[in-house]
Amino acid sequence: MEEMNQNDREMDHEMILGLLNRGDVEGFREEFLTHHPYDQATFYEKADQDIRHLMYQYLSPKEMADIFEAIEIDDDEYEDLFKEMNANYASDLLSHMYTDDAVDILNLLNKEQVATYLTIMEKESARQIKDLLHYEEYTAGSIMTTEFVSIPKNSTVRSAMNILRNAAPNAETIYYVFVVDEDKRLSGIVTLRDLIVSDEDTLIGSIMNERVVSVSVSEDQEEVARMIKDYDFLAMPVVDFQQHLLGIITVDDIIDVLDEEASDDYSKLAAVSDMDTFDKGPFTAAKKRLPWLILLTFLGMLTANLMGMFEATLDKVALLAVFIPLIAGMAGNSGTQALAVAVRGIATGDIEEESKMRLLFREAGTGLITGIVCGAVVVGLVYFWKGELLIGALVGAAVFGSIFVATLAGSFIPLLIHRLKIDPAVASGPFITTLNDIISILIYLGLATTFLGQL
Amino acid sequence: MEEMNQNDREMDHEMILGLLNRGDVEGFREEFLTHHPYDQATFYEKADQDIRHLMYQYLSPKEMADIFEAIEIDDDEYEDLFKEMNANYASDLLSHMYTDDAVDILNLLNKEQVATYLTIMEKESARQIKDLLHYEEYTAGSIMTTEFVSIPKNSTVRSAMNILRNAAPNAETIYYVFVVDEDKRLSGIVTLRDLIVSDEDTLIGSIMNERVVSVSVSEDQEEVARMIKDYDFLAMPVVDFQQHLLGIITVDDIIDVLDEEASDDYSKLAAVSDMDTFDKGPFTAAKKRLPWLILLTFLGMLTANLMGMFEATLDKVALLAVFIPLIAGMAGNSGTQALAVAVRGIATGDIEEESKMRLLFREAGTGLITGIVCGAVVVGLVYFWKGELLIGALVGAAVFGSIFVATLAGSFIPLLIHRLKIDPAVASGPFITTLNDIISILIYLGLATTFLGQL
Repeated sequence: MEEMNQNDREMDHEMILGLLNRGDVEGFREEFLTHHPYDQATFYEKADQDIRHLMYQYLSPKEMADIFEAIEIDDDEYEDLFKEMNANYASDLLSHMYTDDAVDILNLLNKEQVATYLTIMEKESARQIKDLLHYEEYTAGSIMTTEFVSIPKNSTVRSAMNILRNAAPNAETIYYVFVVDEDKRLSGIVTLRDLIVSDEDTLIGSIMNERVVSVSVSEDQEEVARMIKDYDFLAMPVVDFQQHLLGIITVDDIIDVLDEEASDDYSKLAAVSDMDTFDKGPFTAAKKRLPWLILLTFLGMLTANLMGMFEATLDKVALLAVFIPLIAGMAGNSGTQALAVAVRGIATGDIEEESKMRLLFREAGTGLITGIVCGAVVVGLVYFWKGELLIGALVGAAVFGSIFVATLAGSFIPLLIHRLKIDPAVASGPFITTLNDIISILIYLGLATTFLGQL
Repeated sequence: MEEMNQNDREMDHEMILGLLNRGDVEGFREEFLTHHPYDQATFYEKADQDIRHLMYQYLSPKEMADIFEAIEIDDDEYEDLFKEMNANYASDLLSHMYTDDAVDILNLLNKEQVATYLTIMEKESARQIKDLLHYEEYTAGSIMTTEFVSIPKNSTVRSAMNILRNAAPNAETIYYVFVVDEDKRLSGIVTLRDLIVSDEDTLIGSIMNERVVSVSVSEDQEEVARMIKDYDFLAMPVVDFQQHLLGIITVDDIIDVLDEEASDDYSKLAAVSDMDTFDKGPFTAAKKRLPWLILLTFLGMLTANLMGMFEATLDKVALLAVFIPLIAGMAGNSGTQALAVAVRGIATGDIEEESKMRLLFREAGTGLITGIVCGAVVVGLVYFWKGELLIGALVGAAVFGSIFVATLAGSFIPLLIHRLKIDPAVASGPFITTLNDIISILIYLGLATTFLGQL
């Protein structure tokens, strides 16, 4: 018997390229199609245009649809890939994809392409796609699929199993079966696990779970992700305001949402565009980062302007300037800490309306404690290093004040932005940093100017 | 007929508390147990000790095990919760949980508790738990469960369905069935979808997928998460080096891993401990943040020391000090951008050994372009604001140099740390910021001192 091992499943790209170039249709299909669609997609992504054209010839639109379900390419590459296909082939391909994934792609193509494909597409698929195309981005409606299995409440386990067998090739999941009443309203859920352990004559109504958790079609996709994570569901039903079952959202799509949101929050904290992945050239990367950096240049000039007001003070005691990066750094870091807690708390839903005041009080307390401790450390360090107790006290006081204000601002600003219905993560990075620079410099040089006589 | 709506599924905490306090065992169980374990867990988390004690009386260890599967509390709270239970009850509870979840909890209890529970636990459960307890944290072994369904290759669909029906109450998933040979080596996989559409007399060997994707028991959990995300699996088999099937990892655990890793990377970029959630008091929060802030104070003093070397220069031209926050800020932000791309690239597996040099060259190019653009903007701004071309040129040159070096450092350092087998996210936040402060100040004040004669 053949030895099973990890390498066994890995695709031999060279060999498959050989089969394609020799025009060995049968050999190519036999080897290629036994692999997982994700591995097929990886091969397709790496192939050049000639090879891709051969693949369109040798694979059916349905087989190519499986590849496009698993593909991971940049949003702006879809248009060109679809343009190089015959329009009928492209339209067939889209109609064979799960509706939610087809809609995701159609949203990335130009309007003419979309119109063409929908026109020549088989009617029922076109209708399902059109139904989903108008849901707003980032809502449950925009990520749901309409390929689910529903059964009437008064059917038996036997008839439910028959419906499932017929639906198996097309439904996105057959492990959850949704029970609906005469008006197509969601009234319960039965898992395939329940079905196979039940007697064939049992009525669905008697084994279904009536306390079904569902989401509204306009619900935010992050909230859906949070619910699926909490409830450990494989799929979540999506309903309208009258509980009519419109679609389902499956766990694999939710993993993508969670991943996307996490990358997004992370990127914003670092002031880098989400699209900047490492496989792009330096010009593309620079183009993505420059808007932030130029904005920062202007914000930085603001800070410099502000400091210019204190030039006389700085001129008298040059030693003062030496501590500016320290104080600004402390403000920046304590502000970012507070911000991260608030942004993550909002993103994970832990912070609700009623707990916002509590968070602010908590952060005020935290800023007070960390400010006092760090301020005291700084007084000690400056005293031992320079022997300057007055300058030490001044710097220490500035550190204390900066940390306290920056911590409060770091939690207040994302809460404020969230109330304005903007993603609090945009407050991250450059804005909070510049604000903290300004706060800390005002406190430090303001104190210094006031007490200059004593220095 | 009753109107189905979202509120219908929500638990009425007041009413359930009333039932508990009145000692209405039947009423409590009837109402409480129809809710999803996640909702039950939320109730338990909010209950005070008296209520929890009533729950232990009214619910069986198995029912309480379902609650603990869904619970979301801090790691340090488990020990006290288990201490307040009778030891037999606690041990029974653990034996009814899925092995992977029981092991997660046991890893958080003190050694004595663990020894007690395992001693009085029913033998087979204790053995399964002990098997998993010795796997290293963050590996596939540490998150896998042993409750999977496996069948021999030569069985029929009929016998497979019978095995599944028996396993349904205990297995973590019955939607994937793992096919093993005589030596218990993994040789294929069959989904329940395949089974229900196949004829009852079909041999499993003829419908199973032989190209099964599996992971080694010592594989990093992040890599497992990435694979499940790419392949859209509901579960992934875990094998030893000879392909013996040891356990499975299910998609719900993978969602938790992804969420954890994302929060972790985010927290590190913000220099805040992952454990600092908003529901803690200010002292706890301060205790978590102070180690970072005090470390930063010392690093900041290093920077101040360094600047002290240039005190004479600053004394001569006080205007120089005014631009320090701008230059340090530009270095800090461009460094963080480069760092974020590298850290995310390593975390998502996009950056492999062979592409590291390419990334460095790319970042050098990016730093060059962004540096030139921002430097030119600064020269212009200073000239128009202060009319100082020389100072403008000096600041511009410093901005250019700082951005270039900071961008390179921002990608080089995480790559270096990753090579040393340390999580590159630890390089985030304070370290890169301090390094960038030092780089930018050295460049700026170094240039200024050199060209002081001209100012």
